[in-house]
Amino acid sequence: MGAALALAERGRGRTAPNPNVGCVIVAHDRVIGRGWTQPGGRPHAEAMALAQAGPAARGATVYTTLEPCAHESPRGPACADLLVDAGVARVVVALGDPDPRTDGQGIARLRAAGIDVTASICADGARRSMAGFLTRRAHGRPHVTLKLATSLDGCIALANGESRWITGPRARAHAHLERARHEAILVGRGTLTADDPKLDVRVPGLEDRGPRRILLSTRAEPGWEQIAAPDAIASLAGVDHLLVEGGAQTAAAFLRADLVDRLLLYRAPILLGGKPGLADLGLDTLAPAHGCWRLYDARMLGSDRIEVYERVKG
Amino acid sequence: MGAALALAERGRGRTAPNPNVGCVIVAHDRVIGRGWTQPGGRPHAEAMALAQAGPAARGATVYTTLEPCAHESPRGPACADLLVDAGVARVVVALGDPDPRTDGQGIARLRAAGIDVTASICADGARRSMAGFLTRRAHGRPHVTLKLATSLDGCIALANGESRWITGPRARAHAHLERARHEAILVGRGTLTADDPKLDVRVPGLEDRGPRRILLSTRAEPGWEQIAAPDAIASLAGVDHLLVEGGAQTAAAFLRADLVDRLLLYRAPILLGGKPGLADLGLDTLAPAHGCWRLYDARMLGSDRIEVYERVKG
Repeated sequence: MGAALALAERGRGRTAPNPNVGCVIVAHDRVIGRGWTQPGGRPHAEAMALAQAGPAARGATVYTTLEPCAHESPRGPACADLLVDAGVARVVVALGDPDPRTDGQGIARLRAAGIDVTASICADGARRSMAGFLTRRAHGRPHVTLKLATSLDGCIALANGESRWITGPRARAHAHLERARHEAILVGRGTLTADDPKLDVRVPGLEDRGPRRILLSTRAEPGWEQIAAPDAIASLAGVDHLLVEGGAQTAAAFLRADLVDRLLLYRAPILLGGKPGLADLGLDTLAPAHGCWRLYDARMLGSDRIEVYERVKG
Repeated sequence: MGAALALAERGRGRTAPNPNVGCVIVAHDRVIGRGWTQPGGRPHAEAMALAQAGPAARGATVYTTLEPCAHESPRGPACADLLVDAGVARVVVALGDPDPRTDGQGIARLRAAGIDVTASICADGARRSMAGFLTRRAHGRPHVTLKLATSLDGCIALANGESRWITGPRARAHAHLERARHEAILVGRGTLTADDPKLDVRVPGLEDRGPRRILLSTRAEPGWEQIAAPDAIASLAGVDHLLVEGGAQTAAAFLRADLVDRLLLYRAPILLGGKPGLADLGLDTLAPAHGCWRLYDARMLGSDRIEVYERVKG
């Protein structure tokens, strides 16, 4: 399932409105098929893996990060039917599909055909992996990651505005890779004026992954999609993962609206005493600030440190 | 030597102007003596460990974090002579003593008496352990630790000044233990006015360790020692370890004066958008901010994280 989750990452940010699923087929201790949801959402991961496995899929075990779909569509047959037709012996599923057209019916159809199904394996990993799809399903809006790259004292620039560079090349490359995992990136008017950011993906081999550029502003800007307030992200069709890159006012606006699901913090071992990364969140007491964020990943990137937090569901 | 360095910590913050040394004596694979510099600087660690070992010290191995002193004083004989008289076979030393009355002569006297001496074992650990003594010797001022307890976004309080509590009970207990390792704690006028801090050591068994309270201000304050500018710390007799606890202006003043040797950062997993921990450091470009700090210790204290940085010598 770990391998399937890794494959699922390949589609992240390019499969909306479909989930980015990963699938591995194993027979006689050998991987005979690998698949992941293709850009635009089709083919599905299972279809791709089955095509690769061919007749060898008969009697094999299938690991898939999401319950196989039970509904046919003009764009392809139901994956549950494909698996039954291929004659696989066992299917291991990380997470049930909340889509009402499937929602348990995929697994039921497999079991009805005599296939051994094991569910809820690595469910937390699958939830993180398909956070965009799940958030859109549950809340009708994209999954939002807020990125901050700061000094040890939480600054994103010197008092004079200078911000190049706070973090080192490895942290910046990581941040570019994160861009490729989102359908769209959003900045505020202040960041546009100060930095005129390209928001492209400067990672060799991923240059074509340039996400859509969204501006949080009440005024339109040529070359940018524009929304006037954070809750308008719900209207961004085809965007299931949104990366908010700044600045301090924009970050605070999303936090005040309780629209941040994940924090991506890059921190350089420097002290600045400059511009804070966050504008006022409007808190009167400290109690409500506690218990909102849980660290789930951290590591060093050169001399910088990355920490990833997820929102603790209220 | 690790055990000797741990013993040396017992004296930290109470031995000025003497170094806080630790000493372990081993014979036939058993520890037969343990010593650390006593409050006020005497007895020395080696004298205490030798007294504990008694006649069993003959032929034993002595681990000491600092070169044994070579000078007699009205307060006691030279430790090098005590070791020779005790008939020890071997002495392992972490660091040479920069005191001109010893500075190599301690080791020379041991070797002249036929004792096997190994030097420079765990020298980095010994340098950190005796940072106060060494900084006073090298720069004529105390070793300065700057403590900051912040949110993820580097804030030390809400916009309305509320700061209790940002970090949790384990981080706060650790910060109190750190107080006990310093002869004095300094705050600025703003912190005095806002918090009227007691700066005591609220750790069971260490309540008597209350450090001296220093105020950075141009105006005197009853109950406080007072200095008008950061470089006046050189005049604080009997203070080899100074803990700077805030606030933002005071921290920035010490950093601007290049008088911070160690950073003690406590960080809670919360976002505030409130008052920054550091006032402007007056930097025009980012380049001079880089390469100044090296992380040398980090761990979780409950859901908070502590990081300890030391200044990279310029």
